[in-house]
Amino acid sequence: MTSPSLDQTTRQLTFLMELDKLKSIMRQSPLINRSRKENSAEHSWHLCMFALVLSNHAKDVDALHAVKLLLVHDIVEIDAGDHPLHATSGQAEAIAQAEQRAAERIFGLLPDDQGRELLALWHEFEAAQTPEAIFAKALDRLQPLLINTLSNGGTWTENGVTEQQVMERYGPVIKRGSPDLWEAASQRVRDYFAGAAGK
Amino acid sequence: MTSPSLDQTTRQLTFLMELDKLKSIMRQSPLINRSRKENSAEHSWHLCMFALVLSNHAKDVDALHAVKLLLVHDIVEIDAGDHPLHATSGQAEAIAQAEQRAAERIFGLLPDDQGRELLALWHEFEAAQTPEAIFAKALDRLQPLLINTLSNGGTWTENGVTEQQVMERYGPVIKRGSPDLWEAASQRVRDYFAGAAGK
Repeated sequence: MTSPSLDQTTRQLTFLMELDKLKSIMRQSPLINRSRKENSAEHSWHLCMFALVLSNHAKDVDALHAVKLLLVHDIVEIDAGDHPLHATSGQAEAIAQAEQRAAERIFGLLPDDQGRELLALWHEFEAAQTPEAIFAKALDRLQPLLINTLSNGGTWTENGVTEQQVMERYGPVIKRGSPDLWEAASQRVRDYFAGAAGK
Repeated sequence: MTSPSLDQTTRQLTFLMELDKLKSIMRQSPLINRSRKENSAEHSWHLCMFALVLSNHAKDVDALHAVKLLLVHDIVEIDAGDHPLHATSGQAEAIAQAEQRAAERIFGLLPDDQGRELLALWHEFEAAQTPEAIFAKALDRLQPLLINTLSNGGTWTENGVTEQQVMERYGPVIKRGSPDLWEAASQRVRDYFAGAAGK
């Protein structure tokens, strides 16, 4: 271990204090108790617990590498904000550019080698090509799906989303990460909509 | 990889949905922007980022093992609540018993082997004997200390805590985890109280 210099320590602590802002970035999803919307910092913790517990549902996934991806995956939202699942292609391009600038600014607060390391983790998550990134992306869809089924439909009810739309929007990403988690999740979606129709 | 059974999957998802409640457990510390108090779920994420970034300040610490400890360290608060830094010895005993019951109930929701694994991580954190647990405990003090220095004194101002009390309450635990992080942190404490006295 080389002892970090005072300047390196200062840069590390500046970065860590900047992260406090992620606690004020609000997502669309509610808490299960519907007391308020979820924020991106607590969402990130929740997803890390998903990775720790559910990695036996995916092939060749190092759970702790997935945890690292999920710890950093939403940090760019400090500058770029949280965006709903679907955007037009023009919006998607503008969002991608804003997130890239955010990543460079925020990870750039760190000592150079650490900044590059965390930027690489974020790029790995976004590219969704490694087993861990594919799995992490699946969890990032699975968590709000489960919350919606337990909170009177959550964002689906708010936005008038149908059962078929849920299957189409969540299915491919979750199934790619874990076919058997999609089997369990899709059953819950069917049960939720069957129950909601009977009300 | 052995495919988890449907019953195991159900237990895993029940546990993960139970964790949503940690987002409603409020701590004493504010956010830096002072808009509200911090909750234990977002606090846990923040500490994991501390571990990922600061492990080069500690000897023999596997950063990702420290992350695992910090992911689970506050889960017992779902049943037992968050408690301020100092309690009488009678209170401390009652809190410890409530936390033990909470750990058995909540981790007991998981398939048996996973429940045992997460319970062991929580015990490791609480015992503070391994390098990672000692480091994780230090970060759990460092984070609110830094937030207090940036939020007009935070809980120190609220509770009339003096500079000397800060040094005594935070110093030993942070220094045990990392002498050079304590050097950086204690300088910030001195600067904060010098500035507060000048106001």
